[in-house]
Amino acid sequence: MGGDHGPAVVLAGAAIALKRHPDTRFVLFGESDLVLPHLDADPELSAASTFHHCDVSIRMDDKPSQALRQGRYKSSMWRAIEAVKTREADVAVSAGNTGALMAMAKFCLRTMANIERPAIAAIWPTLRGDSIVLDVGATIGADAQQLIDFSMMGGAMARALFGVERPTVGLLNIGVEEVKGQDEIREAGRFLKETPLSGIDYRGFVEGDDLGKGTVDVVVTEGFTGNIALKTAEGTAKQIGAYLRAAMSQTWLAKAGYILARSAFERLRDKMDPRKANGGVFLGLNGIVIKSHGGTDAEGIAAAIDLAHAMARNGLREKIEADLKSFYLRVSEEAAEIPESNLQ
Amino acid sequence: MGGDHGPAVVLAGAAIALKRHPDTRFVLFGESDLVLPHLDADPELSAASTFHHCDVSIRMDDKPSQALRQGRYKSSMWRAIEAVKTREADVAVSAGNTGALMAMAKFCLRTMANIERPAIAAIWPTLRGDSIVLDVGATIGADAQQLIDFSMMGGAMARALFGVERPTVGLLNIGVEEVKGQDEIREAGRFLKETPLSGIDYRGFVEGDDLGKGTVDVVVTEGFTGNIALKTAEGTAKQIGAYLRAAMSQTWLAKAGYILARSAFERLRDKMDPRKANGGVFLGLNGIVIKSHGGTDAEGIAAAIDLAHAMARNGLREKIEADLKSFYLRVSEEAAEIPESNLQ
Repeated sequence: MGGDHGPAVVLAGAAIALKRHPDTRFVLFGESDLVLPHLDADPELSAASTFHHCDVSIRMDDKPSQALRQGRYKSSMWRAIEAVKTREADVAVSAGNTGALMAMAKFCLRTMANIERPAIAAIWPTLRGDSIVLDVGATIGADAQQLIDFSMMGGAMARALFGVERPTVGLLNIGVEEVKGQDEIREAGRFLKETPLSGIDYRGFVEGDDLGKGTVDVVVTEGFTGNIALKTAEGTAKQIGAYLRAAMSQTWLAKAGYILARSAFERLRDKMDPRKANGGVFLGLNGIVIKSHGGTDAEGIAAAIDLAHAMARNGLREKIEADLKSFYLRVSEEAAEIPESNLQ
Repeated sequence: MGGDHGPAVVLAGAAIALKRHPDTRFVLFGESDLVLPHLDADPELSAASTFHHCDVSIRMDDKPSQALRQGRYKSSMWRAIEAVKTREADVAVSAGNTGALMAMAKFCLRTMANIERPAIAAIWPTLRGDSIVLDVGATIGADAQQLIDFSMMGGAMARALFGVERPTVGLLNIGVEEVKGQDEIREAGRFLKETPLSGIDYRGFVEGDDLGKGTVDVVVTEGFTGNIALKTAEGTAKQIGAYLRAAMSQTWLAKAGYILARSAFERLRDKMDPRKANGGVFLGLNGIVIKSHGGTDAEGIAAAIDLAHAMARNGLREKIEADLKSFYLRVSEEAAEIPESNLQ
């Protein structure tokens, strides 16, 4: 029911994703009046789907507290998340209200053991292929322990998504020297450097321009900075797109050149297409929830479902759980090895 | 003496700037062996310059504390800043070590009355013309009062540079709703909304993608986020430039199109040229210091000097001083009007 365009676009996106991955099965939640007509018109999608009617839908402008009060247990958003909890679904995908989705996901799925706060991970297209950036806005601020947790969760996601054995991880900072940055970042950096972890290859601090370069597989930051960086990059890409369009339509020669090079421009547009990187993955909860941009179209929804498919097929949740478990086991073993006398 | 290429590039930049603004006068500080040969080769520049030999130069990798210890009172960097203090110069421009330049500028010039911390302001090219973004890295973190100070200093700079009467100002945040963001930002936003200031037109919160759109003349943020945003935008621009070059050289048709549209591509390159927006302005000190990128060429240095020329001609320092003075006068008058009984 979510997103700026509602079920029409969400179901059109599901149909595209189903063609690409015919093994996908959908559990759909929404208002039958609005969903069933689209479903009836597409027998293939219909055959791959189970539909559950819900009376209540969360609006795009509901506050998280409002959404929880009015939509808990019964809204389409809640029930999609609950399907992950009951293991009826592997992943929940929603184009709805981000704040409400996060609040409901936290309430319904709870955070994983030892994880204090969830993070939202974004796929970031780079010159070297895709990277993962987290947190891009689940919470503001993060202490050293949370940044370390984000590093492990991002690493597990990179393994599940990119198939690399030990993904490279960097902490986003304003310089690469060890003395730079906020205390929390320096503390997390020191720990990650001194404590080699099996799941990730820690490469130190990275800066804002390393995001586009793809210097590391996983860039870790707290949610405020991550959100600003993500939107700044989106804004810059749009700005340059506008410059390019203006430049190419200014003279007859430029227009002629544009026509000759049209396929090259189409490849470029494809490369810069924000719909392709659509889907913020909620990490650190007992279940995977993916948030699609509300304003996207069917192609964007399909990209978010593709991502959900990859996450489920490659066992993201299990990978994160195993990594965190072995990490916290090791931390507690190390703590147990400290002689009593040192603690006095 | 600063920058990756030393006096050769700095003096070549000065020569370009002098051609554009023949009323510029240079006071040059550096090692005579390295500076004089270039100066002797350019009679016009030589006629517009006074040269002072300095034995000591700050290296690009000196730590700020080291630079202060070894370079105070005698290095070329210190003496250039000191020339602003003694009013021999209107603005100091350096392509040297940023940390050392800021440390020396703070030590030599001191912060303006009521200003706790200086900020670095960057010129940000947008779809609507240039904006000013501050702080882009002078300090990490800023409380509400500092964000308000940054708003006024940025406003004064916009008036000096863009000639607008009441520049529009926004606080960088992760959403435009009043409930979003860090406490400091919400508090500063509340104050700016409730206390109309004569020098600025406060427009509320802006997001990362508003930077490229140019939604407001002045975007205010603390230094960590500002630095990450600036470098993220630079990185994204480079990334798209690389995509564009790759797309245009992939097929014969694309190459032919590129040749036809060459002048359009040149305009685009010109528009995206990072050298044009070169120059971080230190605000909040008793004197203006401009930091050029260390890695830039003569055109970049010239752009930083052009900026210095505009700042001096339009009385940036006086504008900031007057704005801050009237603001703090008003705040203290308002505080005086609160009946004693309210304070108990």
